[in-house]
Amino acid sequence: MSQEKQSHDAYASAGVDIAAAERLISRFADLARGTRRPEVIADVGPFSGLFRLGAYRDPVLVASTDSVGTKVKLAAVLGRYEGLGHDLVNHCVNDILTAGAEPLFFLDYIGGSGVTDEAKLALVGGVAAACREAGCALLGGETADMPGLYATGDFDLVGFVLGVVEREAVIDGSRIREGDVLLGLPSDGLHTNGYSLVRKVFDVGFDGDTEEERERLNRTYPGLDVSLGEALLASHRCYYRDLKPVLPQLRGIAHITGGGIPGNVPRVLPKGLGARIDKSAWETPPLFRLIQERGNIAEEEMYRTFNMGIGIVLAVAAADAEAVRSQLPGALVVGEVVRGKGVVWG
Amino acid sequence: MSQEKQSHDAYASAGVDIAAAERLISRFADLARGTRRPEVIADVGPFSGLFRLGAYRDPVLVASTDSVGTKVKLAAVLGRYEGLGHDLVNHCVNDILTAGAEPLFFLDYIGGSGVTDEAKLALVGGVAAACREAGCALLGGETADMPGLYATGDFDLVGFVLGVVEREAVIDGSRIREGDVLLGLPSDGLHTNGYSLVRKVFDVGFDGDTEEERERLNRTYPGLDVSLGEALLASHRCYYRDLKPVLPQLRGIAHITGGGIPGNVPRVLPKGLGARIDKSAWETPPLFRLIQERGNIAEEEMYRTFNMGIGIVLAVAAADAEAVRSQLPGALVVGEVVRGKGVVWG
Repeated sequence: MSQEKQSHDAYASAGVDIAAAERLISRFADLARGTRRPEVIADVGPFSGLFRLGAYRDPVLVASTDSVGTKVKLAAVLGRYEGLGHDLVNHCVNDILTAGAEPLFFLDYIGGSGVTDEAKLALVGGVAAACREAGCALLGGETADMPGLYATGDFDLVGFVLGVVEREAVIDGSRIREGDVLLGLPSDGLHTNGYSLVRKVFDVGFDGDTEEERERLNRTYPGLDVSLGEALLASHRCYYRDLKPVLPQLRGIAHITGGGIPGNVPRVLPKGLGARIDKSAWETPPLFRLIQERGNIAEEEMYRTFNMGIGIVLAVAAADAEAVRSQLPGALVVGEVVRGKGVVWG
Repeated sequence: MSQEKQSHDAYASAGVDIAAAERLISRFADLARGTRRPEVIADVGPFSGLFRLGAYRDPVLVASTDSVGTKVKLAAVLGRYEGLGHDLVNHCVNDILTAGAEPLFFLDYIGGSGVTDEAKLALVGGVAAACREAGCALLGGETADMPGLYATGDFDLVGFVLGVVEREAVIDGSRIREGDVLLGLPSDGLHTNGYSLVRKVFDVGFDGDTEEERERLNRTYPGLDVSLGEALLASHRCYYRDLKPVLPQLRGIAHITGGGIPGNVPRVLPKGLGARIDKSAWETPPLFRLIQERGNIAEEEMYRTFNMGIGIVLAVAAADAEAVRSQLPGALVVGEVVRGKGVVWG
């Protein structure tokens, strides 16, 4: 049988009869165990993960799912898998953070073909490490080997996060007012968006000659401290720990993902309000300028495709802005809330 | 930009600037709206889905993730997508049902390349319909178009379910005793396991000549009421509504997935106990006999790969067995709990 599913629910006793698969599952389980929170109910639920919620007055569950997109193709060329696990968890955790939620647990799915056990362990290892950093439990996951669907060595990496927030603490943008200050926190590289464009620009991750692709990724460019490949594989930054202490003062949080600042900031603004963003408030990191130059990409497309150096944008009452900014390392005033809609630059 | 992610979080305002993508997202949102439960918090959370849990004494959250495996390849040959949505939801819902959980909400992920809008709508339509039937909300989802990763028209379909059960009502197998009766409920075909083997046996779903593959799937065989393709695409049956009224009387629930009865029933049994299963207690459906005969597959491999006609197995105290059985349409006594380990036939 060429299809083989390997559950790594934290406490699954294996339903797979191949010794190697069982060893792998047992290592997945070890990785999951390293993320355990006291609420995880151990040794129960071979088909699912169980988590005792605990005492909340009016708990709102917040959930999100995402994948890391074609960043997987670059990671495969360089044989660097662990960072993708961080990308996946951090992207999902940031998504529920926009509602003010604390991440409770995470589940991952690896669909692929001929992915080595080492690569799978590095992927799940990265997921587990990022879960530990965010304080959430890796509650379960699934690995499906499907040679008919993926080319050998290819895989897709999908995640699901579940968080909780008290009803009264939900951040929904409704309290945002004209004149509120917009703060931006720096990104660590491209995070998980724009990789299809980047792959075209540098001709990498297309199943061409991997050795040549590897050489292209190992090149250094003026302005980059590290090789192109290193710069492109920098992991999606998680904002949960930084933002946790100031969540009560935040009126809106926009995660800068696909669509960039203009595609994401307006999503959290009430009707009738827009954002004036001052691009000169921060320095665009050299990686983005390199991509723009090599790809001859219009400025507007750059801002619509990439985060351009800002990974998350916060709306704060003007009176709170300085107090919030001073608690957040690297935070900058990037604009303000204005009458209108969408994003205006200036 | 060839990579395009389409969020269908129930209340997402689109971060995508292509009109067609926006129309698709709006139709995804309509489908999600049709599954809404009162706990879903509308018009909040463009980056995630929000669900107000409500009053529980000691809520345990139960989560699971799965994909439908290479069944997607057969569905693609026949252009029949909606059933896969049912497969995905029902598989996941059954997985958390094994702990006694009520499904609250679901999220789906479609990764693929060149999947038509019609196919995507059929997939999400099937997911939404199955969510409605199980009473759970479709809280969000993600569609990622990744031409470098999937061959044109190919896709993977992944789901996440979140359910809840009171701590005292968690079904964990710990109350199972020697002499307990094992009841089986009929499956509807193969559910979502064994498709890689089936594809080999009938030489379908290998990106060969699709017209020839379609002809092979449209054949009828003695004993089958419908064409081979119809029989193979029958949807994974959901057991939640049937089992809900009898959950307090169930001591253990095994979902018969990959590994079949011998791979799954022992997973819920306490140490020192095994299952004696009487294969003659039910008639193996003709589809399984056809696969066995055409593929010249050993009896043991059949029972290790397929559900063989039983989709879920319940452990019940002998004194309750008849009362439980009589409330479950199609339920049969298939065996009993014995000293030992694993499954013994007879």
